[in-house]
Amino acid sequence: LHQQVPGPLWKLGRLNHIAIAVPDMEKATALYRDVLGATVSEKVPLPEHGVYTVFVELGNTKLELLHPLGEKSPIAGFLQKNRSGGMHHICIEVDDINAAIADLKAKNIRTLTAEPRIGAHGKPVMFLHPKDCDGVLVELEEA
Amino acid sequence: LHQQVPGPLWKLGRLNHIAIAVPDMEKATALYRDVLGATVSEKVPLPEHGVYTVFVELGNTKLELLHPLGEKSPIAGFLQKNRSGGMHHICIEVDDINAAIADLKAKNIRTLTAEPRIGAHGKPVMFLHPKDCDGVLVELEEA
Repeated sequence: LHQQVPGPLWKLGRLNHIAIAVPDMEKATALYRDVLGATVSEKVPLPEHGVYTVFVELGNTKLELLHPLGEKSPIAGFLQKNRSGGMHHICIEVDDINAAIADLKAKNIRTLTAEPRIGAHGKPVMFLHPKDCDGVLVELEEA
Repeated sequence: LHQQVPGPLWKLGRLNHIAIAVPDMEKATALYRDVLGATVSEKVPLPEHGVYTVFVELGNTKLELLHPLGEKSPIAGFLQKNRSGGMHHICIEVDDINAAIADLKAKNIRTLTAEPRIGAHGKPVMFLHPKDCDGVLVELEEA
């Protein structure tokens, strides 16, 4: 009797973005637009996520500049610890987020919430625990 | 008399990599290879840069896992402050690093060294000061 080993049921994809928390959105936008010459988006408020966002296009991927919106912003604590700002998370695409999460849980990778939720781009996302990812907050987004 | 305003003499390119400093290279490599299913490189020692590197392919860009090599590793202090590891820098390509640096200096962006040096990929690189880049260490690489 041979136990069949299932192949992977999901695939890791491309880097969707690097998120950078910034204490001054106008200054950060000016750095990438006026000093470094990148194409940047308008500033978009996302009240349900507690952030303002500006996207910086880098051709193959993008930076997502984040600034707190409202009193319960999920990045407020990060900016209190990192007053100049800093890299907050990276987002990598997956083809099937539920399959990925089930597989990662079986491999003892912790997630920040029990279930995926709808992220800033309107797609299901899940954050993996930094302690299980070399100190890096990794967001998986179904794409 | 009109003073002619010069156009930009250099262009920002794609994201070359995100560098992640890790306290345990074998564990970090296993996370990306065995748990997340990415293609990873061999571990390469770069004694002249004081690091071991492993590249994680993400299709559109790559992660560069860094672990200290030798007693004067430039990432030793970072790992003392961030014991679980963490995002160390991002590297963005430019078409002409000398033109970029001259322009950035004129715009009061500080660099970590006075002149470009040859980076881990054998190409000229320059690090911009995190205090001038929203707390993010930004490496520019001529590509």
